[in-house]
Amino acid sequence: MTDSEYDERRRSIGARRNPEAQEAILDAAEAILIEDGAAAFSIEAVARRARAGKPTIYRWWPTRGTLLLDIYHRQKPAVIHADTGSLEEDVTLFIERLLEYWKGGAGQVFRVVVAEAQRDVACAEALRTYAAGRRRQTAAMFERAIARGEISPDTDSLLAAEMLAALAWHRLLTDRLAIDRNEAKTVARQVVRGLKVSD
Amino acid sequence: MTDSEYDERRRSIGARRNPEAQEAILDAAEAILIEDGAAAFSIEAVARRARAGKPTIYRWWPTRGTLLLDIYHRQKPAVIHADTGSLEEDVTLFIERLLEYWKGGAGQVFRVVVAEAQRDVACAEALRTYAAGRRRQTAAMFERAIARGEISPDTDSLLAAEMLAALAWHRLLTDRLAIDRNEAKTVARQVVRGLKVSD
Repeated sequence: MTDSEYDERRRSIGARRNPEAQEAILDAAEAILIEDGAAAFSIEAVARRARAGKPTIYRWWPTRGTLLLDIYHRQKPAVIHADTGSLEEDVTLFIERLLEYWKGGAGQVFRVVVAEAQRDVACAEALRTYAAGRRRQTAAMFERAIARGEISPDTDSLLAAEMLAALAWHRLLTDRLAIDRNEAKTVARQVVRGLKVSD
Repeated sequence: MTDSEYDERRRSIGARRNPEAQEAILDAAEAILIEDGAAAFSIEAVARRARAGKPTIYRWWPTRGTLLLDIYHRQKPAVIHADTGSLEEDVTLFIERLLEYWKGGAGQVFRVVVAEAQRDVACAEALRTYAAGRRRQTAAMFERAIARGEISPDTDSLLAAEMLAALAWHRLLTDRLAIDRNEAKTVARQVVRGLKVSD
């Protein structure tokens, strides 16, 4: 599922559900997140703030993890993926922008989503679907480079995309989001050119 | 800190602490993990089983996450890192063996450690130290390849090691541990040879 397919599915379920009530709940949930942070976030607090019944929220989002993921997804900007005509530059910008974006509150929210997914099956499934969509989006960066003849046509673009996303997750989950341009460039160089001595 | 330095530190703190009592607690904790799983694991249950006071355990391990990490570390075999003389083969074996190892109970334990680290500062710090040690160990695989002239001497070995570990974490945290030899080989090929068309 691509990112826009994920959106589409979310909207279409939302439409069946009652889009205004759903957006009101997401707004309330977002406000609570900003005020109290992801750790303190609970369905109870969201219900109070949105003046909605807890059963209503649970019907739409079975767990706090799934609700947090939808808020995270709704906030996420589309500017992470660049298209500069150079894969190394695109990869450098991708890793810089994603880690920079996570330094704000969004990183805190996403960390909690990943943590919840380790004990909440519904959240795990939603996260897996979401991550697969993001992977396809990031893989497009590599597909464009194949089309330009910049990288080998037998590149596994999804795997390359996953390795980049995985590095970003690893930095987030070990609280090491600071990255300078040189390090981001080294990431890109090692991913694109590899490690092998040219022969 | 290397893996053996981490061991050393654990042992030396243990010696100051009372090594027998410490090992008895780790044994009890391990038994509970095997019987009930990581999700149900609590300091209370460990104290009961080890016939130790909760304050004793808390003095040595401030949180359940830090205790889980020590059990995980104590169990982990040294066979993950191969030295075949070919970096691509070493990387293939590393990713295969680590994911295979995690398919047993160890993966469940490590997932919970990573989840706990997102809300428990002591666990986060212990995990960061542990991961840095493992990274240095994995980087040795790349250092050997540099010494053999197989890869470029300006390779950032720690970064290459981190990208591998990050991929493994990502698979674990999204519950996608199954990997076949072809995919493991593709990982190794893309890491070592890169994506660029040779020119």
